[in-house]
Amino acid sequence: MSDRLRPSTRIPAVAGELLQGVRGTPPLTHCITNAVVTGFTANALLAVGAAPAMVDIVGEAGMFARIASGLVVNLGTPTPEQRAAILEAVRGADAAGTPWVLDPVAVGALPVRTALASELLAHRPTAVRGNPSEILALAGDGAGGRGVDAVDTPDAAADAARSIAARTGAVVAVSGPVDLLTDGERVIRIANGDALLTRVTGGGCALGAVMAAFLGASRAKDVDALDAVAAAALVYTVAAERAAAVAGGPGSFAVALLDALDAVGADDVAARARTDEGML
Amino acid sequence: MSDRLRPSTRIPAVAGELLQGVRGTPPLTHCITNAVVTGFTANALLAVGAAPAMVDIVGEAGMFARIASGLVVNLGTPTPEQRAAILEAVRGADAAGTPWVLDPVAVGALPVRTALASELLAHRPTAVRGNPSEILALAGDGAGGRGVDAVDTPDAAADAARSIAARTGAVVAVSGPVDLLTDGERVIRIANGDALLTRVTGGGCALGAVMAAFLGASRAKDVDALDAVAAAALVYTVAAERAAAVAGGPGSFAVALLDALDAVGADDVAARARTDEGML
Amino acid sequence: MSDRLRPSTRIPAVAGELLQGVRGTPPLTHCITNAVVTGFTANALLAVGAAPAMVDIVGEAGMFARIASGLVVNLGTPTPEQRAAILEAVRGADAAGTPWVLDPVAVGALPVRTALASELLAHRPTAVRGNPSEILALAGDGAGGRGVDAVDTPDAAADAARSIAARTGAVVAVSGPVDLLTDGERVIRIANGDALLTRVTGGGCALGAVMAAFLGASRAKDVDALDAVAAAALVYTVAAERAAAVAGGPGSFAVALLDALDAVGADDVAARARTDEGML
Repeated sequence: MSDRLRPSTRIPAVAGELLQGVRGTPPLTHCITNAVVTGFTANALLAVGAAPAMVDIVGEAGMFARIASGLVVNLGTPTPEQRAAILEAVRGADAAGTPWVLDPVAVGALPVRTALASELLAHRPTAVRGNPSEILALAGDGAGGRGVDAVDTPDAAADAARSIAARTGAVVAVSGPVDLLTDGERVIRIANGDALLTRVTGGGCALGAVMAAFLGASRAKDVDALDAVAAAALVYTVAAERAAAVAGGPGSFAVALLDALDAVGADDVAARARTDEGML
Repeated sequence: MSDRLRPSTRIPAVAGELLQGVRGTPPLTHCITNAVVTGFTANALLAVGAAPAMVDIVGEAGMFARIASGLVVNLGTPTPEQRAAILEAVRGADAAGTPWVLDPVAVGALPVRTALASELLAHRPTAVRGNPSEILALAGDGAGGRGVDAVDTPDAAADAARSIAARTGAVVAVSGPVDLLTDGERVIRIANGDALLTRVTGGGCALGAVMAAFLGASRAKDVDALDAVAAAALVYTVAAERAAAVAGGPGSFAVALLDALDAVGADDVAARARTDEGML
Repeated sequence: MSDRLRPSTRIPAVAGELLQGVRGTPPLTHCITNAVVTGFTANALLAVGAAPAMVDIVGEAGMFARIASGLVVNLGTPTPEQRAAILEAVRGADAAGTPWVLDPVAVGALPVRTALASELLAHRPTAVRGNPSEILALAGDGAGGRGVDAVDTPDAAADAARSIAARTGAVVAVSGPVDLLTDGERVIRIANGDALLTRVTGGGCALGAVMAAFLGASRAKDVDALDAVAAAALVYTVAAERAAAVAGGPGSFAVALLDALDAVGADDVAARARTDEGML
């Protein structure tokens, strides 16, 4: 971790508080996500205590984003119908003040979603979650990845994250061995997690949805967007550590992760957290 | 359970008979279902012994519904292509006499599927399966749910279920802690199941597909639609109890449910059944 | 096994070599596959060591097929968008020399995909993988299946496989209790596997994707397409045997298969292989 950052007990406390909030009043979490991970994402949300709703058709996505507690827009398999529904949804979210997370899967490598992601940034997402390649590409700094796999480290994308945050007002969360999250001024790092998360499809995508749920829950608390997104990442990666401890491989890890998202509590989070925070 | 209802050993016997029928001659079960649960639904059908086929494109859905043993139409993520394929399929089912189940996911809360569900009721589904909110909305009595989660009890939807049954001739199955099933005159209740079914995406949707499979198998037996649908619900909820007994959380429950749908037998069903029946 | 074939230690050796190649330099494996199995397919590829990318929209599929190491085209749920993306992708694969696998799910039984499969054969896939019904239908010899379930044995489709191979230059892999693979002249049989593969949705579809990954890895080695496809089938079916040994039913088998695809090594493959080869 950076010398400029100091270990945080504040973030684990916020994570515990929001986790209880999610379970007490399950945030209705609107997901427009890719066809590969939609089942796993819904199960991750249900496991952690949220109420998922996959509403991705034109004529429904906009009105639903207005009543949802949070929204995640994941660009993994953006069919024409989904692209239109996404624009409807972000306009609905904007009108109603619904917090939303943009997950720019494979942006930079593939043209249709890259153009859409640029357009979506103008709608000012509450948060952006991606791997370093995606964040670099989104900031206009990257050469593009090979798809969904990260080829750079979160540190290498710190400037890109700051640039996106400054330009759009979004919290930017860069996933990697040590996650880096920033609102353009403050920075939080989380060293929890397990490499098995990269061996399961949806390991990152489901986190974007959990961030949307935590953002939804944060509205009833005095918690800002950076802290809410960091809380989601911390709960998720602590659950991943619990799961990895009992898994025999990537298949059983995915199953155990759902069990762990259900079982994880504020105490686990406090005991296992390896996070620091400071100024960029 | 209601004082008007008497404990039934008849339904468990029918369930055992149809379960053997499904495994002896696997009913080709045509599924048009939502993107979130399609894999889990196919696996649930395979596990119980049926032969799933996910055929949801225009130009194929209609002809396939004619040769299938049973059809389930689930409105969870109704893209334009699926909506057209659904209409094709129900016309095919109608022409060939294929029994079909309507699962009106989130009807009432979302306009596109609500309009489609009304149109589909006119095609006289063999059965309708939903949670209380959805059944209330379908009958025109509800204010709409928050999506897929139920906010009312099956008892609260009994009049709505009777109304739909009277209007369309469908068997109506209302899912909840105690399932309520009726053809408008007779009523069957099933107290089996486990709360973990609500913590797994597709827990209800897969049941709709299993109902279509059992309706398919019932055609070779002297079993009416209400008994066939109740048999499916009983087998499924007994399997859920077996699964819950070994599960460590929602992830392992979903896996164990598939194992239990494969392993459950007529003896288990008879031993565990908590069901009664009578007149509405 | 046929008297004309002799037990092979060569194929297991090739399988071990390609398995190490996949894990050393994960082949970017482009999947256009059906909505039912897309998550399981991505997880199977990740488990065995490959890098999956599900890119199935117009405007992205063609350019991605040019940079991918291998491509699988699976016709399970061919929406209009996917059909257009598939044609884009196979043209891209053809232009760049990317090896690709055609998985003609339910061809023969359903008209839209049957017409598409015929068109795709003219683009000369590197390999075709299907069950006997599908291979018979693709060769124009079959009466059509009931969907995805096989009603004939691989031996019954040997002439059809040879005919497709002769006409298109493709390796043809016919799945069954004993898999039959041929390039029209040489033939390889693999007796590994487990009946549980037929009780899990995507059991066959994921194999088609693994074949595309192994074809991708074979380009850096002196391995021809028939051997590469046979190596994929052998690794996959040996992993299935490992999984079946610990599974309690179809649900836990699917999970264990992913763990086994991660854990299986060249030694396992050599020890368990039951394969022979010869001339047709």
